[in-house]
Amino acid sequence: MSRRSVRTERRLFLADGPKAVEGALGADVWQELFATPDAVDTFADLIGDFPVTVVTEQAMAGLSDSVSPAGIVALCRFLDDEPELDARRSPLMAICADVRDPGNAGTVIRCADAAGAGGVVLAGDSVDPYNPKAVRASVGSLFHLPVGQQRNPYAAISAARSAGYVVLAADGGGDVDLFDADDLLAKPTAWLFGNEAWGLPSELAAAADHVVSIPIFGQAESLNLSTAAALCLYASARAQRD
Amino acid sequence: MSRRSVRTERRLFLADGPKAVEGALGADVWQELFATPDAVDTFADLIGDFPVTVVTEQAMAGLSDSVSPAGIVALCRFLDDEPELDARRSPLMAICADVRDPGNAGTVIRCADAAGAGGVVLAGDSVDPYNPKAVRASVGSLFHLPVGQQRNPYAAISAARSAGYVVLAADGGGDVDLFDADDLLAKPTAWLFGNEAWGLPSELAAAADHVVSIPIFGQAESLNLSTAAALCLYASARAQRD
Repeated sequence: MSRRSVRTERRLFLADGPKAVEGALGADVWQELFATPDAVDTFADLIGDFPVTVVTEQAMAGLSDSVSPAGIVALCRFLDDEPELDARRSPLMAICADVRDPGNAGTVIRCADAAGAGGVVLAGDSVDPYNPKAVRASVGSLFHLPVGQQRNPYAAISAARSAGYVVLAADGGGDVDLFDADDLLAKPTAWLFGNEAWGLPSELAAAADHVVSIPIFGQAESLNLSTAAALCLYASARAQRD
Repeated sequence: MSRRSVRTERRLFLADGPKAVEGALGADVWQELFATPDAVDTFADLIGDFPVTVVTEQAMAGLSDSVSPAGIVALCRFLDDEPELDARRSPLMAICADVRDPGNAGTVIRCADAAGAGGVVLAGDSVDPYNPKAVRASVGSLFHLPVGQQRNPYAAISAARSAGYVVLAADGGGDVDLFDADDLLAKPTAWLFGNEAWGLPSELAAAADHVVSIPIFGQAESLNLSTAAALCLYASARAQRD
């Protein structure tokens, strides 16, 4: 389950730790629930009446790829829940192009959930959302909003635009200031974020409707992907609320 | 150098990788510069006329605690640069109480730099800013703004308030909405952030002037420390700019 090929073939993944398990049970995608004897006690409220397979600490160490497993893991079916592209009903979504680090992918999913986005598309050569580290970093949010996958980032952009979203690329070189664009941000928006190391290729940024930059007031050269995504998504949420 | 006690005794730390070394050279706190033969070529522009001690890959692996060392490290003197508490000249600062994860501490320092803050205080039982992972996560920002340390978080709050800052605690239970508080945020502000796992103890939050929460529009329960800090610091920067 720690390998993508195995997950893809079996269409199963692991939700590791109490937050992820809570999400999995709530989303009704769990197939089997495993816990150590200690975890059965610790998480009695969470487990409730769900049938649980009790396993040894050793077996749990094999199931979990966490350094310090919480002792509870759910084997889950793939969610297969594509984001619904409905600009009126869910006017905010995120497209990540080539996000490679599973922790970043999970954190962006968590931020998108917090900001009220209707979905996330992991596009291009991105990590898959079922990677154990991505699941963990999403802290349950993977089960709260649809997370799709699309190999072709241009197709993801086109689909969003056709559905009525304005596509905004987040890039330090953008000519629109994030904090000076509330009229733009108030529209149904699909944010396009690039890779954590090299950002957005210029040809991909050019496929967006506007390129928006987060102003840097100090001497930092940039922000990391997840903080940049949080700032962009929340700026939209704020403008759309007002 | 990877142990805090060793760093504290010698008052030296390591800046690892090109971004950190660039910061160290710019801040004039470097004592000795080490590079592998390959790195001498790769980072020729960065090294310029600085004297460099060429070391083997093996020696570099001992100096760096990075999984894949970039091959360039600067041994640096402690910065000893306490944030100047001048509410007029630098109307934004951050106090972190009990931040334990060095990656989080470094990322908050980077966000504070980007948002134009005048300094960061790592208060209470926080990781020290010279931890190699904190230095790396700050991506040079440790050298851009003063980062102080204060064992007593209440003393850090009092000092900020005496200097004319409004102290705002960031906490999910706060009764002030971050996006509905521009008049408050426009004042000179010291943000108070809590631990990554347990947040701010209620007695510490009560020592602030106001407790501010980031609205959650979706189903996420919370945001992680560095994204929450980015949202709060940037909300201030935006309100202070307008």
